[in-house]
Amino acid sequence: MNYQMIRFLLSRVLQITGLLMILPFVVAIIYREYNCSLVFAVIVAGCILSGSIGAHFKPENHAIYAREGFVATALTWILMSIVGALPFVFTGVTDSYVDALFETISGLTTTGSTILSKVEMYYSVQFWRCFTHWIGGMGVLVFILAIMPMAGGYSMHLMRAESPGPSVGKFVPKVRDTAKILYLIYIGISVLQVICLLFTGLNLYEALTTTFATVGTGGFGITTAGIGAFKTSTQVVITIFMILCGINFSVYYYLITRRPMEALKSDEVKLYLALMFGSATLIAILIYRHGFTATPFESFHHSLFTVASVMTTTGFATLDFNQWPQLAKTLLACLMLTGACAGSTGGGFKLSRFLILIRAMKNELIYIVHPNSVKKVYMDGDPIDSTVVKSVSAYLSMYVVIFVISTLLIAFDEFDYETNFTAVAATLNNIGPGLSMVGPTGNFGSFSVLSKFVLMFDMLAGRLELLPMLILMSPKSWSRR
Amino acid sequence: MNYQMIRFLLSRVLQITGLLMILPFVVAIIYREYNCSLVFAVIVAGCILSGSIGAHFKPENHAIYAREGFVATALTWILMSIVGALPFVFTGVTDSYVDALFETISGLTTTGSTILSKVEMYYSVQFWRCFTHWIGGMGVLVFILAIMPMAGGYSMHLMRAESPGPSVGKFVPKVRDTAKILYLIYIGISVLQVICLLFTGLNLYEALTTTFATVGTGGFGITTAGIGAFKTSTQVVITIFMILCGINFSVYYYLITRRPMEALKSDEVKLYLALMFGSATLIAILIYRHGFTATPFESFHHSLFTVASVMTTTGFATLDFNQWPQLAKTLLACLMLTGACAGSTGGGFKLSRFLILIRAMKNELIYIVHPNSVKKVYMDGDPIDSTVVKSVSAYLSMYVVIFVISTLLIAFDEFDYETNFTAVAATLNNIGPGLSMVGPTGNFGSFSVLSKFVLMFDMLAGRLELLPMLILMSPKSWSRR
Repeated sequence: MNYQMIRFLLSRVLQITGLLMILPFVVAIIYREYNCSLVFAVIVAGCILSGSIGAHFKPENHAIYAREGFVATALTWILMSIVGALPFVFTGVTDSYVDALFETISGLTTTGSTILSKVEMYYSVQFWRCFTHWIGGMGVLVFILAIMPMAGGYSMHLMRAESPGPSVGKFVPKVRDTAKILYLIYIGISVLQVICLLFTGLNLYEALTTTFATVGTGGFGITTAGIGAFKTSTQVVITIFMILCGINFSVYYYLITRRPMEALKSDEVKLYLALMFGSATLIAILIYRHGFTATPFESFHHSLFTVASVMTTTGFATLDFNQWPQLAKTLLACLMLTGACAGSTGGGFKLSRFLILIRAMKNELIYIVHPNSVKKVYMDGDPIDSTVVKSVSAYLSMYVVIFVISTLLIAFDEFDYETNFTAVAATLNNIGPGLSMVGPTGNFGSFSVLSKFVLMFDMLAGRLELLPMLILMSPKSWSRR
Repeated sequence: MNYQMIRFLLSRVLQITGLLMILPFVVAIIYREYNCSLVFAVIVAGCILSGSIGAHFKPENHAIYAREGFVATALTWILMSIVGALPFVFTGVTDSYVDALFETISGLTTTGSTILSKVEMYYSVQFWRCFTHWIGGMGVLVFILAIMPMAGGYSMHLMRAESPGPSVGKFVPKVRDTAKILYLIYIGISVLQVICLLFTGLNLYEALTTTFATVGTGGFGITTAGIGAFKTSTQVVITIFMILCGINFSVYYYLITRRPMEALKSDEVKLYLALMFGSATLIAILIYRHGFTATPFESFHHSLFTVASVMTTTGFATLDFNQWPQLAKTLLACLMLTGACAGSTGGGFKLSRFLILIRAMKNELIYIVHPNSVKKVYMDGDPIDSTVVKSVSAYLSMYVVIFVISTLLIAFDEFDYETNFTAVAATLNNIGPGLSMVGPTGNFGSFSVLSKFVLMFDMLAGRLELLPMLILMSPKSWSRR
C-alpha cells in the first residue's frame, strides 16, 4: 500500500473541501448570518492550511494501483463527510455530531435521507447541505482528476473506483480529459436548470439549491412543505432535469461531438426511457381511475414526476404516493431498486447491471437446454467480457449480503419490518425516504447511534458501488506488500 | 423434443398417482368415510386405467436430453397436482377447484401454505393432504427412477431436473441405484419418526400424518390448534426429525456405508448445524430476556423448534413468533431465505448456493485488488467448476426476477406490502405461512384467482429449483428440433 500517495491525495481533498466551503461562506455574508460566516471561515482556513501542509511533501512514488485507488476513494469520501459535518454542529442545526455526519453523508452520497424533523435552517447551512448533493453527484475524485495533473497512467484506478456502473467508459485517451468533459457537461446541465427555474419564478437561492438537489439526484428539500408547494411549471422543469440526470453522461458527450448514432446505440438508455414512460403511463391511469388526481394531465404530471424521482433515486415527492394503489406502489418499489443508468448521477443497482444479469440468465437457460451452445452476453451490440458478467454477479451477491447484515444490525432498535427494510433499501440505493417511520413525512432521527452508523456505511457503499467500502474494511488491503 | 417419451413418462406418473391414492382409500374404509372411499376408488381406477393405456404404446426412442428432462419434470408435477386436487373438490373440502389445486400444489411442493381457515376435515382427505408432503419431499420422478428400468443413460437428466441443489451427487454409478438408496434412507427416517411419535403418545393416524409433514418438511397441521397443542416430548421428536431432514441425504449414505470422514467433509452441513444451533441459542436468550418463556430450557426448546422449522422451511410453529423481538424475527426471516442443505427435503435458496456465492464474491474482491490472482471456488476441500458458479449466479438472478414479477402480479389484489412480499417469499421458498394476512394464524384464501395461480407457479418453481418451470414456459423448448 502506497501510504504516502494516499496521504497526498487526502490532503488535496482537504484543500478542495476548503475551497468549496467558500461558497456557503459567501452566502452567509449575503444573508448577514455572521455567526455562520465565522464558522465557515474557520473551517475553510483549517482545511486549506492542513491540506497545504499535507500536500507540501510530495510522495516519492506516484503509483496508484487498484487497491490504493479503492482505499483512497473510500477515505476521500469519509474525510469529506467528517469535515463537511462540522458546519451543522457548530451552527447548532443538529444536536449531535453523529446526526451531522449522517446528514452530510446523506448529502454527499446524494441519498437525501434526513434526521431533521424540520428542514428550515440558516440560509448558508442549507446552501451547504444542498451543495453537498452537487459535489457528490459527480464525485470529488473526478474533480481532482480534472484539475490536477497526475504522473503516470494511474488515474484510471481512481476514476474506476468512484464512477458508477459496471465498467468505465473513457471518452478520450486521457483520463484527465474525460474527467474534464464530464464536469463540463455536469456544469452545463446545472446552469441550464438554474436558468429554467428562474424563469418559472424561483429566486436565485431557491433555484440554486433546488438545482443542486436535482442534478445530483439527491433530494434534500429546502422547506418542510417540499416540492409539492412549488408551481406546476417548476415541477415540470425538475421532472425534465431529473430524467436528464439519470441518463448515462456518455450520451451527452456523443451528442456534443455530433455522434448521435453512438448515443442511440445504448441499450441501457433505451430501457431507461421505456421503463420511465411506460411506468409513468401505467401509474397515471391507476391514480386517475382511483381518483387521486382530477385531470388526465395532472395524473401524468404527478406520475412522471414520481417515477423520475424514484428511478433516478432523487427522492422528491409532489404527492404522498404512500396512499396510492398497491400496484402503483409495488411498481415504484421495483423501479427504486433497479435505479438509473450507469455513468449518471443516479443511484440504485443500475439498469446496465440489471440488463447484464438478465441476459446472462437467458444464456444460462439456453445453455442448460443446449449444452453445446456457448453464447456471449451482448451490450449495445457488442459482446462483453465474461469477467464483467462475473463481477456483476458478484456485485449482486455483495449487495444482498450488505442488505441482510444491515437489516439484522438495525433490528436491534426493535422497529417494525417495514421501517428497517425500507431504511436499508433507501440508504443503500441512495434514494432518501423509505416507508413507515422513515417515510416521506418521517425521518431517520429516531434510530440509535449504531443503526445510524450502519446506514451511513450503506449510503457510502451505495454511492461508491460497494467495492471501495468493502476493500477498505478488508484487513488484507492494509498489508504493506 | 421427444413427445412420445414425455407421454410415456406422464402415463407412468398417472399409474403411480393411482397406486399412491390406494392408501387414503384404505384410510377412508377404516374410518368408515364411505363417500370419501368412493371418491378415492373412482380416482384410483381412472388414473390406473388411463395411465395404462398411455403407457401401453412404448415410445420408439427412449432418448431424454436435458430439455426433455426439465419439461417432463415440470409436467409431472403439474399432472400430479391436477389429479391430486380432485379428492378435495369431490368431497367438498374446498369450495372451488382452484383452491383444491392450490392446496395440492402446496402439499406436493412441501410448502404447507393453506387456503383453509379450518383444517379439520375427513380423516382420509386429511391423510391424502399430508401424504402429498411425503410424496413431494423426495420427488416422484426419483421414485419412478427407483422402480423403473430405463434404457440408455438418460435417467440422469430426470434426476438432475428434480433434485434440489446446485449439482447432483450420484453415490453409485447407476442412477437407478442412487434413487433406490435415497428412497430407502427416506423411508427409514420416516419409519423411525413414526415409532418415536407413537412412544410419545400419539395414535398411529396422528403419528403418520405428522411424520409426512415433518420428513417432507411440508408443515400441514392436522388440527387448527397445530403443533403447539402437542406434548413437549412430541415437539422434541419433531424438532430432531426436522433437523435431520434438512441435512443433505448423502451424509446418511456415507454414514451407512461407514465412511464418516466423507460425511464430515461437507462444508454445507457444518454451516447448517452452526447456523441452526447458533441462531437457536441467540433467539433463546432474546425470548427468555423478553419474558416470552418461563425457563431457560423452555426458551431453548421453542427457539430450536422454531429455527429448525424455519431453516428447513417446514413451517410448523409452537409459539406465535410474530410477537417475538424484532431482532429474533429478522434473524428468522434471513434463515427462511437461506433455507436448508441441497439434497435434503428442505426448501429455500439452499445453503450450498449461498456458500458458493459468498466464496465467489470473496474471490472477486481479491481479484480486484490483485488482478493477477486467479483463484477457484472451493467446496468441501475441492475446487468446483466455474460453470457451477455461473449457474448459481444465474439462479440468483432468476430467483430475484421471479420474486419481483410475482410481487407485482399479486399487487393487483391491493393487499399490503407485508402480505404480498411474505406471500411470495413463503411460497417461492416452500415455507408455508408468511406474515400479516398470510401469517401463521391467517391463510391464503382471500387472494384472487390470478394471485393464486401466481403463487402456485412460485411453489412449483421453488420446489423444482426454478429451471423446469422456466424451461417449460420458454417457447424455444417446444420446437421439435
